[in-house]
Amino acid sequence: MFVTFEGCEGVGKSTQLRLLSEYLERTGQRAVYVREPGSTDISEQIRQVILDTKNTAMTEMTEALLYAASRAQLVREVIKPALERGELVICDRYVDSSVAYQGYGRQMGAELIKKINAPAVDGCMPDLTIFIDLSPEHSWRTYRTADRLEQESNEFFKRVYDGFINEISVSNGRIVPIKPDFDKNVTSQKIIAVMRERGIIK
Amino acid sequence: MFVTFEGCEGVGKSTQLRLLSEYLERTGQRAVYVREPGSTDISEQIRQVILDTKNTAMTEMTEALLYAASRAQLVREVIKPALERGELVICDRYVDSSVAYQGYGRQMGAELIKKINAPAVDGCMPDLTIFIDLSPEHSWRTYRTADRLEQESNEFFKRVYDGFINEISVSNGRIVPIKPDFDKNVTSQKIIAVMRERGIIK
Repeated sequence: MFVTFEGCEGVGKSTQLRLLSEYLERTGQRAVYVREPGSTDISEQIRQVILDTKNTAMTEMTEALLYAASRAQLVREVIKPALERGELVICDRYVDSSVAYQGYGRQMGAELIKKINAPAVDGCMPDLTIFIDLSPEHSWRTYRTADRLEQESNEFFKRVYDGFINEISVSNGRIVPIKPDFDKNVTSQKIIAVMRERGIIK
Repeated sequence: MFVTFEGCEGVGKSTQLRLLSEYLERTGQRAVYVREPGSTDISEQIRQVILDTKNTAMTEMTEALLYAASRAQLVREVIKPALERGELVICDRYVDSSVAYQGYGRQMGAELIKKINAPAVDGCMPDLTIFIDLSPEHSWRTYRTADRLEQESNEFFKRVYDGFINEISVSNGRIVPIKPDFDKNVTSQKIIAVMRERGIIK
């Protein structure tokens, strides 16, 4: 089974991934953890080009194709082989992030981004996508000067969030929004409950 | 006007580009010279990832998308602005190389490669493509250990050449094959004659 985590910046996605991995470890369940862009040597090299703050001249289309390239490598080198071995794969961001950030945020259009990514993912779509559902007004963080992508406007992040919400409605139940609780452990329990209900974990 | 040069390895393409640039300089004609992959800071970073001999794990699809990403940047940052200023742009390799090398050489299919590149080039296709028409059997060179792509088999290069020949037939006269003469200056004169006939240069 293949599970992805999505959400805007500063919503606690990394924390939730850590809490899930701790739960799985505690209960003796194995998983392969990856993140996008990156997680293979070649994808990390591409990630460096994408996120380098010096690359201010990068066009939207270049960025979209670099994400797709990084994804193509990760799918073929790690995700598909792991799924074929019957393992659970948990990925921090995937195609939905490209659709939300490039398609809606940069206004390139969701359909164009899906088209660019179709050969990259080659049918390898998540069985479940957990969307940490917190709008940007509620999750501003101070670390937003960290890399090139995080230096974006509030309007941009609003479009990204609205894009995620729109994609939920056309995902046929694949993308499940989880409203984060003030207590991160409560949020984690909600996520675990969804994954158990779907028979992905015990 | 936009002119590209294509051909297999070791056919004298770089020499011909140099001779053309010398002719244009001598006759007081300006041009913008670029090469693929590369020619912008970001495209050069992508070029390094593509050609790094350590990246043996790179999948075909990753490679195809990286070429498209590098091209997207070059088109938007250099080629389109120069064409809009009315300048002549001469590019060493372009989409036809991707179609020949990935589509035919790696057998990913010409149509798939054209589809991946469509958003990258965004309609910016050459007015003329000079194909230095020398089959690989006639042009083996010893420098073929230079980078990752040049470490390919004879069968691969045969497919690439046959792919170029096939693309000529569907190019509506855009791709013009030039058989190289033993004398490089004679070849150059042939190329200049084609460009003058088409009204691209004086």
